[in-house]
Amino acid sequence: MAITVVGSVAFDSIETPAGRRERCLGGAATYFSLAASFFTDVRVIAVVGEDFGKRQEAVFQARQIDTRGIEHTSGKSFFWEGSYLENLNEAKTHITDLNVFAAFEPKIPEAYSDSEFLFLANIDPVLQRRVREAMPQVKLVAGDTMNYWIKDHRPALLEVLNGLDILLINDTETRMLAGNSNLVQAARAVMALGPKTLVVKHGEYGATLFHKSAPKGKGAELRAPALPLEEVVDPTGAGDSFAGGFFGYLASQPEQTPAVFRRAMFYGSVMGSFACERFGTERLQQLSRKEIDDRFTLFRELTHLD
Amino acid sequence: MAITVVGSVAFDSIETPAGRRERCLGGAATYFSLAASFFTDVRVIAVVGEDFGKRQEAVFQARQIDTRGIEHTSGKSFFWEGSYLENLNEAKTHITDLNVFAAFEPKIPEAYSDSEFLFLANIDPVLQRRVREAMPQVKLVAGDTMNYWIKDHRPALLEVLNGLDILLINDTETRMLAGNSNLVQAARAVMALGPKTLVVKHGEYGATLFHKSAPKGKGAELRAPALPLEEVVDPTGAGDSFAGGFFGYLASQPEQTPAVFRRAMFYGSVMGSFACERFGTERLQQLSRKEIDDRFTLFRELTHLD
Repeated sequence: MAITVVGSVAFDSIETPAGRRERCLGGAATYFSLAASFFTDVRVIAVVGEDFGKRQEAVFQARQIDTRGIEHTSGKSFFWEGSYLENLNEAKTHITDLNVFAAFEPKIPEAYSDSEFLFLANIDPVLQRRVREAMPQVKLVAGDTMNYWIKDHRPALLEVLNGLDILLINDTETRMLAGNSNLVQAARAVMALGPKTLVVKHGEYGATLFHKSAPKGKGAELRAPALPLEEVVDPTGAGDSFAGGFFGYLASQPEQTPAVFRRAMFYGSVMGSFACERFGTERLQQLSRKEIDDRFTLFRELTHLD
Repeated sequence: MAITVVGSVAFDSIETPAGRRERCLGGAATYFSLAASFFTDVRVIAVVGEDFGKRQEAVFQARQIDTRGIEHTSGKSFFWEGSYLENLNEAKTHITDLNVFAAFEPKIPEAYSDSEFLFLANIDPVLQRRVREAMPQVKLVAGDTMNYWIKDHRPALLEVLNGLDILLINDTETRMLAGNSNLVQAARAVMALGPKTLVVKHGEYGATLFHKSAPKGKGAELRAPALPLEEVVDPTGAGDSFAGGFFGYLASQPEQTPAVFRRAMFYGSVMGSFACERFGTERLQQLSRKEIDDRFTLFRELTHLD
């Protein structure tokens, strides 16, 4: 089943202990789409400027991603510059230039209207809600957010959460959103705001799946590992790639059973681990389905007793 | 097979968000022994003062732990006071009174000399080495250490590491010992110092098993989860309890195969999770083998796809 994703398509300048890259193709919707495209059809809604040309377009086309919803406008694309020199787990932001993103008004192509899956990447919750409302036919809606929206745009965010089936956020965001430092209690509080399912991402320590419908007293449903990597070249986009693998796998299955959710967690971890292996989206662009399946097997070996 | 453990038996005053306890029975050897005693025979080498009486002795006796190696001397037992008010993952130490521990000269009872398993809990590496050398018959030696010994007593520590089969330390200690921030590279560097097996403990995120004999290019062997707990009452001793469950299970098995090592990681996580549920050793004292097996099953469900 096709996924529509709305979010940023951007250029990133990134510095890590492994080196520096100027103006890589980036943005949450880019990482998400590339990762999800190995599992199902993906359609993007975003806005870019005149600096987004044929080379960038070709990255999406090579993975058969539908870009008819990427609006081209005058000006420059969203630009982010950051570094991970001291801590690979947390980016230090140097520059955020919203550019054409500042006036982003998501437009949904008619051709996208039969999408049954919708992913609201981390953007202004007002826009997330607008897209959600414009696509009432979707069967399953997942989304992401960040500390900025949790702190300063809570009312708008709460309206989005109320309409979400699945929320994917990190530890800090979960605790901040719930105002509770215990992960299990915080997860329950976050799910009380709307999402039936919560995926808490722990960076290099993997991710935890929570279901609202779990029997009373039951905490987490599944803890998926991250792969301890020999070399983390660039962690940018790992969380969005996790979301793409997770939601892409979910959308590829005829039914979203508990067992499918569990496998989706592992596919999320697999795609997140690949994203870190090279700068920007380089590794996701070069990936094969066989590599994905082999790493899935490796994750199974890394966690299973027999 | 019997395990001999050398380490601290102490009193701890602990404050956590769940409350405060004065002078609980504590110390690495205490937590380790209690946890390991559910799997195999345990013998302790330690020193205590006049404040260690029948009540404390009874805690060991209730679990059939051999305390003939606990030397009673005049003065006070090792005392630690700490809190976890801001961060449950890291204790803030207020008081460390070595007391009788300052002049600790481990004495090994004759009756311990057929122990095939030896655990060197976190104490001065000079003492760890002395005990190791006095027990040349042991088949498998595991040990722990901490940042203080890594930073300021490196030569003595290196001599201990050289004689260890298994080292159990946390993330920060691994990176500090190796001088490398990448976990996989750091693990390899630490194993090059001696231990054939390294267990890196990640607190609330579980633990990772590394084997020196792994094929080239292979990173971690197994990642065991920690149980996301509804309420962490007191994390004191969780790492020592992990070590007790891990090494206790290893010692209980006829052979230490790779599959046994993997199960041992899960038993370690199980015992660490119980330790956090009440203050001090309260939960370990009240535990049943059935509860341990049930939680092992829960850990399997939390990590396995089917």
